[in-house]
Amino acid sequence: MNVTVKGRRRHCRTVDFDAPGNRVLLIEQRLLPHEFRIVGTRDFRATAGAIRDMVVRGAGAIGATAAYGLAQGARAFRGKDLARFRRHVDAVVQTLVSARPTAVDPANAMLEVRTRMDAGASVAEQQQLALEAARQFAEEDVAHCEAIGRHGAKLIRSGMNVLTHCNAGWLAFVDVGSATAPMYAAQARGRRFHVYCDETRPRSQGATLTAWELAQQGIEHQIIADNAAGLLFARGQIDLVIVGSDRTLGRTGEVANKIGTYTKAVLARRAGVPFYVAIPLSTIDWRLKRGSDIPIEERDESEVLGAWGRTRSGRREFVRVANPTSRAFNPGFDVTPPDLITGILTPAGIFKPKELWARRHLLGGPAH
Amino acid sequence: MNVTVKGRRRHCRTVDFDAPGNRVLLIEQRLLPHEFRIVGTRDFRATAGAIRDMVVRGAGAIGATAAYGLAQGARAFRGKDLARFRRHVDAVVQTLVSARPTAVDPANAMLEVRTRMDAGASVAEQQQLALEAARQFAEEDVAHCEAIGRHGAKLIRSGMNVLTHCNAGWLAFVDVGSATAPMYAAQARGRRFHVYCDETRPRSQGATLTAWELAQQGIEHQIIADNAAGLLFARGQIDLVIVGSDRTLGRTGEVANKIGTYTKAVLARRAGVPFYVAIPLSTIDWRLKRGSDIPIEERDESEVLGAWGRTRSGRREFVRVANPTSRAFNPGFDVTPPDLITGILTPAGIFKPKELWARRHLLGGPAH
Repeated sequence: MNVTVKGRRRHCRTVDFDAPGNRVLLIEQRLLPHEFRIVGTRDFRATAGAIRDMVVRGAGAIGATAAYGLAQGARAFRGKDLARFRRHVDAVVQTLVSARPTAVDPANAMLEVRTRMDAGASVAEQQQLALEAARQFAEEDVAHCEAIGRHGAKLIRSGMNVLTHCNAGWLAFVDVGSATAPMYAAQARGRRFHVYCDETRPRSQGATLTAWELAQQGIEHQIIADNAAGLLFARGQIDLVIVGSDRTLGRTGEVANKIGTYTKAVLARRAGVPFYVAIPLSTIDWRLKRGSDIPIEERDESEVLGAWGRTRSGRREFVRVANPTSRAFNPGFDVTPPDLITGILTPAGIFKPKELWARRHLLGGPAH
Repeated sequence: MNVTVKGRRRHCRTVDFDAPGNRVLLIEQRLLPHEFRIVGTRDFRATAGAIRDMVVRGAGAIGATAAYGLAQGARAFRGKDLARFRRHVDAVVQTLVSARPTAVDPANAMLEVRTRMDAGASVAEQQQLALEAARQFAEEDVAHCEAIGRHGAKLIRSGMNVLTHCNAGWLAFVDVGSATAPMYAAQARGRRFHVYCDETRPRSQGATLTAWELAQQGIEHQIIADNAAGLLFARGQIDLVIVGSDRTLGRTGEVANKIGTYTKAVLARRAGVPFYVAIPLSTIDWRLKRGSDIPIEERDESEVLGAWGRTRSGRREFVRVANPTSRAFNPGFDVTPPDLITGILTPAGIFKPKELWARRHLLGGPAH
């Protein structure tokens, strides 16, 4: 998407590749929203470190970063011995996968790159194919998000108030985003609407990343405390909810997403407001049979006990808010059942959650 | 309740009076949970300032503070001229009422004190009666909270998980609290249970005040992000919800309370979990006919855009969390309809929200 840096407007992707320099280019997301900086990783180990340390985060974005990281590692190999090259590539994949071991996107992305590379007869050919495959993976991520935008744009009419939770924006993908894609597409069609961004405690991705994205694109928005959506629903001041998903069960239509998503779905149902989940195909899990089998990550309690931000003097600091002798419980995700979901917005169209399995041939699902 | 300060255990009230020094004694709540300090106000103007600047907050607590502040102001008068005394007292009342103009408790509390004072034949007698009346107001606040505790204790059994929102604890009253009263009473009866404290963004009264109270009383608890309750409800890990109320409509049973309360009521209903509201009689509004007529305070957006806490070096600081170019919407309260409320816990017993009007003779309501 476009960003304005020091007064200059430019197009920018969350993840890109500098082929002459053999560097993966990343927006340093830990500095947002207070500072915009693009960093280049000098080798695949640094790329793995950027995934691990959350310089880059979001399913599609870390998938593309791993794909480029694999190409980067392959291209750094010197020599013509294919057997030695293959062992080197094994080590690169292992390093990149272990950066975020529970994420599924990096592994899937690298499998695609590896499969394409194998067609090369020489080290040089395989190096070339690795970069082509990584670029193709990134382009497909963008194309999927754009398709979500085309299908979803019709949901947003001028004058509407749209609620979103957490960040399923372009910072979580290579570009465009999933939950934000319909907003950007509706804006491109000239519609004017208002977005409420849930703050999304404890990590505040709504207040930091989504609000930053919408501000950059000139979309009218307000940040609200996670507690405030209920009042807006009850007053009829929310017309539509669009959120993302970390894992959607293809067999049941259950959606695991950032903690607090389920609450918004329950509120939307009581208010009779449509609730949509936007997903690229890579987040569909065709294997699990029950939402209760989805592992819910319990994160460090410090996230709940305080907040990161900028002090008045401009330093980035953590402040402890909570009572010093109290502990916290900090689950990262919750699961929204299909009866609360109006539709699943995919690159192949909008489906009822229970239809995913029957339409799996359109959605990259298994043949049987 | 009891607090441990520098290793010493002592009993303490949120609001008290030092008659020889003619000072209102207050817990400096803005320093909690990081520091416990009792401050004494030197005159009624300082007492009004403490209400205005939120040294003391919470319906019952500011009511008692105003009552003591009136006695303090009356006792500072030198002379025997009753007409001049009366004009002085008018000015004292005016100063104290204007400290929090939308709150109803200070005005009601001072009306009670004033009515009692009028029975005195001399300035000295009226000064004496003012202090007696203020003490009685404070004692009644404590007695009401204790009665809520007796009626509510039966709701809490050993092994239960109880959710509360914001702070309707003893820091919001003279002692004991409203939503916390059943917890303290159940603990006194030897029951062991677990409390989830909603963080309660944006002002975090759950993470700061309620968590501090429960820690002081040795009640097992965990702080959760406001987003996390949904997951706990869905998993069957919450057995009971008890919250307070800022205004309860006696005619309809609607409850205005801290933003986010309605959301918890909707979640509790979906999960089939009982949802109780604990109220002292002073928060019942017998006049308004519709919850939609309750004015919803919109507070400063800075509360949503960042957080107050302690830095690692121990300074109290505000950090800006949100995107610097984004704005926030910050409503302070929401309204929960009676169909979502299992019962209203009052000093006179537990009632269905729709029963309040029929039982108004027990609840200090109007005769017709």
